[in-house]
Amino acid sequence: MTDMISRQILLAARPVGQPTPADFRFAESPLAAPAAGEMLLETHLFSLDPYMRGRMSAAKSYAKPIDVGAVMGGEGVARVLRSEHPGFREGDMVLAPTGWQTHAISNGAGVRKLDPAAAPVSTALGILGMPGFTAYTGLLLIGLPKSGETVVVAAATGPVGSLVGQLAKRAGARAVGIAGGAEKCAFGMTEYGFDAMIDHRAADFPAQLAQACPEGIDVYFENVGGAVWQAVLPLLNSYARVPVCGLIAQYNAVGDAPGPDRLPVTMRQILSKSLLLRGFINSEFAAGHYGDFLRIVGAGVADGSLRYREDIVEGLEAAPEAFIGLLEGRNFGKLLVKLA
Amino acid sequence: MTDMISRQILLAARPVGQPTPADFRFAESPLAAPAAGEMLLETHLFSLDPYMRGRMSAAKSYAKPIDVGAVMGGEGVARVLRSEHPGFREGDMVLAPTGWQTHAISNGAGVRKLDPAAAPVSTALGILGMPGFTAYTGLLLIGLPKSGETVVVAAATGPVGSLVGQLAKRAGARAVGIAGGAEKCAFGMTEYGFDAMIDHRAADFPAQLAQACPEGIDVYFENVGGAVWQAVLPLLNSYARVPVCGLIAQYNAVGDAPGPDRLPVTMRQILSKSLLLRGFINSEFAAGHYGDFLRIVGAGVADGSLRYREDIVEGLEAAPEAFIGLLEGRNFGKLLVKLA
Repeated sequence: MTDMISRQILLAARPVGQPTPADFRFAESPLAAPAAGEMLLETHLFSLDPYMRGRMSAAKSYAKPIDVGAVMGGEGVARVLRSEHPGFREGDMVLAPTGWQTHAISNGAGVRKLDPAAAPVSTALGILGMPGFTAYTGLLLIGLPKSGETVVVAAATGPVGSLVGQLAKRAGARAVGIAGGAEKCAFGMTEYGFDAMIDHRAADFPAQLAQACPEGIDVYFENVGGAVWQAVLPLLNSYARVPVCGLIAQYNAVGDAPGPDRLPVTMRQILSKSLLLRGFINSEFAAGHYGDFLRIVGAGVADGSLRYREDIVEGLEAAPEAFIGLLEGRNFGKLLVKLA
Repeated sequence: MTDMISRQILLAARPVGQPTPADFRFAESPLAAPAAGEMLLETHLFSLDPYMRGRMSAAKSYAKPIDVGAVMGGEGVARVLRSEHPGFREGDMVLAPTGWQTHAISNGAGVRKLDPAAAPVSTALGILGMPGFTAYTGLLLIGLPKSGETVVVAAATGPVGSLVGQLAKRAGARAVGIAGGAEKCAFGMTEYGFDAMIDHRAADFPAQLAQACPEGIDVYFENVGGAVWQAVLPLLNSYARVPVCGLIAQYNAVGDAPGPDRLPVTMRQILSKSLLLRGFINSEFAAGHYGDFLRIVGAGVADGSLRYREDIVEGLEAAPEAFIGLLEGRNFGKLLVKLA
């Protein structure tokens, strides 16, 4: 067998602020044939997620930075083209840390076999994957919504927010979603069953949010930060819970944020309302809860009671622009890159 | 019986920033004889606590503001001078919401009988009262220190911090205290058994704190806010817990805090380190845990294994100045006002 060529998107430079196309670089790299214990993967789809912005920076975080010149990391759905690994066979569909590339050699680490008969394989990157598990664990293990309470989530038509809303409804809570634009807001009501959807671009967004939460907010699922948090904070009820899984509004920030310093007000609210804030990464809960999650949410996907939406762009070359758009909220549903 | 006169300290004006003596006013008020179901109390000691600063302001908080012209509120230890209440007898020593005054009429609400043989009655305002229960619940129910972990607390020679340190040691944790000045720091080591004491007035305070916490911080018991929080934040370990019971450093703040805005950095740390922040008021846990607290900490006071220190000022007129000093950290131990 002649060597394969993997077509790849590399990190060309660490972005300062908003990433630009110049921070990415296209490359081709020859792959040796898989050795014993390895397999050759052909990527069908890979995932674009907000957390990748953090990995493009050198700053210490929960995930290691991507080296400049290395392939952009991330998960994909792939087909096993050739296997010298005892656990996988040619033709298997798998979830794997492929990164942004057409082919990869894998030793099986972090690879999970998918059953195309159980659910569309793309869902392993969305509602039945990391974003879905983030929604499930953050809402149900930290947010702990009770019947009659009010749950608020931003990016509400995205893969995390849309499941947060649907699981909040299942728990008997009032679900209020925040999204950008009339189309997303309408979709959140009809498709995901939010009780109210608020457009964060509206000039009177804080007032609209307050009106949509007449009994205050008991759970705020924090995935954006910034202006949304400022609007939510005064509405939080005593003993409200705030799972923090993302801060997309501040990922592109450069240097010190301008004043006033909003920390003292926030701390005072935490104290005077006995608030709970808890940062989390979904992997913390994998050992204890991933099985339940796949069973429960998988059943909802299978019977159509839990809905999702994908936003699929075509071709490796489209990935950088699509990722930049994701950080600006231009996607509408789980953003995936489909390879030919 | 002729009417009693209660000598009182009233709230004269809402302070702007640091309270001044002009914000308080001395008054005398006649008390009618107790009616059926009431009793006349003679205050022996009353408590000065940082939370009272919040009640002097009109801002909504967990406790209702004191009205301008009303008696400064708070708890005291009193003797029942005359009782028309079926639950209390003349001569009983009680813990009661006396406020800053020499005598009060009470209907028994919030009054608890004390046993002078079990512990000095003054401890009902300190280690065996609200401050002690705050330390106990915040550390043991929210902080959840494990053996070998590092617990940090500020105001470490105060009634809350000193018990946090001692209970952290009992849990097998390393206890690091923060206080103002060499005398308090020495006392924290010898009397309360802190493994290290750091003077927050030192120019290199953040570096000293880092050196005292070589394995990072697992529990930070937050009772001050401000510069101490800024020094603690980068040292927090993943999954660190931060019970928030007070923010004395910012109680006197006026208007917007100057920039930079420290909230984004804080939120990012909460996210990337999976931190828990939880505001609390001790009363949340009273129903479930007050009995255990009195039994466990009471035994430690009785056998001398749990230590405490009181800072007693004499006479009603001394209360305003002592309270102003409390907000500046000038007290050394639980601050109490003793009446003749």
